[in-house]
Amino acid sequence: MRIIETIEEMKIFIKQAKAKGLSVGLVPTMGSLHEGHLTLMRQAKKQSDIVVVSIFVNPTQFGPNEDYAKYPRDLSGDSVQAGTAGVDVIFHPQAQEMYPKGYSSFIEIDGITQKLCGLSRPGHFRGVATVVTKLFNIIQPDIAFFGQKDAQQVLVLKRMVSDLNINVVIEIVPIVREKDGLAMSSRNAFLSAEERSAALVLFRSLQLAKQLVARGDVKVEDIRQQVVANIQLEEMAQIDYVEIYSYPLLETMDKMIGKALLALAVRIGKTRLIDNIILEG
Amino acid sequence: MRIIETIEEMKIFIKQAKAKGLSVGLVPTMGSLHEGHLTLMRQAKKQSDIVVVSIFVNPTQFGPNEDYAKYPRDLSGDSVQAGTAGVDVIFHPQAQEMYPKGYSSFIEIDGITQKLCGLSRPGHFRGVATVVTKLFNIIQPDIAFFGQKDAQQVLVLKRMVSDLNINVVIEIVPIVREKDGLAMSSRNAFLSAEERSAALVLFRSLQLAKQLVARGDVKVEDIRQQVVANIQLEEMAQIDYVEIYSYPLLETMDKMIGKALLALAVRIGKTRLIDNIILEG
Repeated sequence: MRIIETIEEMKIFIKQAKAKGLSVGLVPTMGSLHEGHLTLMRQAKKQSDIVVVSIFVNPTQFGPNEDYAKYPRDLSGDSVQAGTAGVDVIFHPQAQEMYPKGYSSFIEIDGITQKLCGLSRPGHFRGVATVVTKLFNIIQPDIAFFGQKDAQQVLVLKRMVSDLNINVVIEIVPIVREKDGLAMSSRNAFLSAEERSAALVLFRSLQLAKQLVARGDVKVEDIRQQVVANIQLEEMAQIDYVEIYSYPLLETMDKMIGKALLALAVRIGKTRLIDNIILEG
Repeated sequence: MRIIETIEEMKIFIKQAKAKGLSVGLVPTMGSLHEGHLTLMRQAKKQSDIVVVSIFVNPTQFGPNEDYAKYPRDLSGDSVQAGTAGVDVIFHPQAQEMYPKGYSSFIEIDGITQKLCGLSRPGHFRGVATVVTKLFNIIQPDIAFFGQKDAQQVLVLKRMVSDLNINVVIEIVPIVREKDGLAMSSRNAFLSAEERSAALVLFRSLQLAKQLVARGDVKVEDIRQQVVANIQLEEMAQIDYVEIYSYPLLETMDKMIGKALLALAVRIGKTRLIDNIILEG
């Protein structure tokens, strides 16, 4: 497995791979890899000749008061894990390689970004769309793999690829969870033992909603309120948002008809966690 | 010469050309072709195996009170001209093909767009950058050809290509002028005979600035004021802007040292014309 740190070297590698007729799968990550990422990589390996994993803590997708500086970084640990998943190349640029002095180009997706994480993290999806566009241009993947855990991110990127006629297939991989249901996240490392236990309230709330829908509840606002009440039972939890939207268009809905996304963002102590489920009414 | 109207058909054509190892040159236009465009096409033919000309009056680069509806359109005339210049394909999509219902992705370039035409035409460069990105993704040119007449556009697109790591070379072709000096423009068709004559004040003013620099004038603001005064001598002319910036960074400068861009936007009657010259102090 190679580790490539410059855009130029990465482009040369890809050019050579393409000249041999090899297909390229990309798994964009911010590192601090966990089983969720490894699932993406194994999936990429099944569908591509060459798997490139980018490890880049992207400054433009963090707000000024967010955890960019303390976001966990562990390239050597990540390399070992990526190697076991069959990854061919880790692309690991420095921030000034990706955003040199004078940098000033950004991708903005309207509409779908004006809710959920887009509301609580202004500029977040601008940063995500921009770095993913750069990675697509540098690595030119045939398929790029993203986790359903970041449900809104996946929808934003699908919108972008469709709107801008980008020649990349977006493949979504289901959420990977710990045995007790907590969704895998690099930010779980920030949780104390007590917080780790409290964090289970997210998964429990998603399951509650699933049961409500299964037993025939159809009023979306009622379901949402019960999820809110359930989270509020956990003293360490502070709700950022609890929303139910139609899926995949993310439009408001009154009754549970067709597919819906229940998305949560909840602070446990200082750590903001997200989780979601697709409900079918 | 083929005329292709859908994105899908265009992508298939390009895929086949690339599979044969052919290089692709792109000349993006809004049609209403003139000798300036044809010069771009002939240059493209010299440097590429296949030349694609896009003819698309792009709605997103026009402001609400601008001339989108009345912008001149003449596909059959354009086809004849493009054929004589050796063009292989005209890509001529409808607006709803490029911007279907729900379209919401845009490219924003900060900094360099906050002056000149970016000030008088808010959103203009957002529209230009967005449509050019789409054309690049659809047509995947090795080289794209633009005229120096749109000096700021060229700088914005070079910034975008560099920032977003786009795999396209931007080639700039000098301004093509009528015998009397008027820069070629599709909008010249709007001019009455009297206005056509008045419009020469743009070229005369650029020549005046060149002479001032040649005789050793170095105070940028003095030169700018003389250009303004010269344009004001023409009764039919109304100045939108007259600016001198360092080239290519477009930074303010006090003394004429190194390269500078003198850029003009002037209304002659209802028609807004632009022109420019690179001065060397």
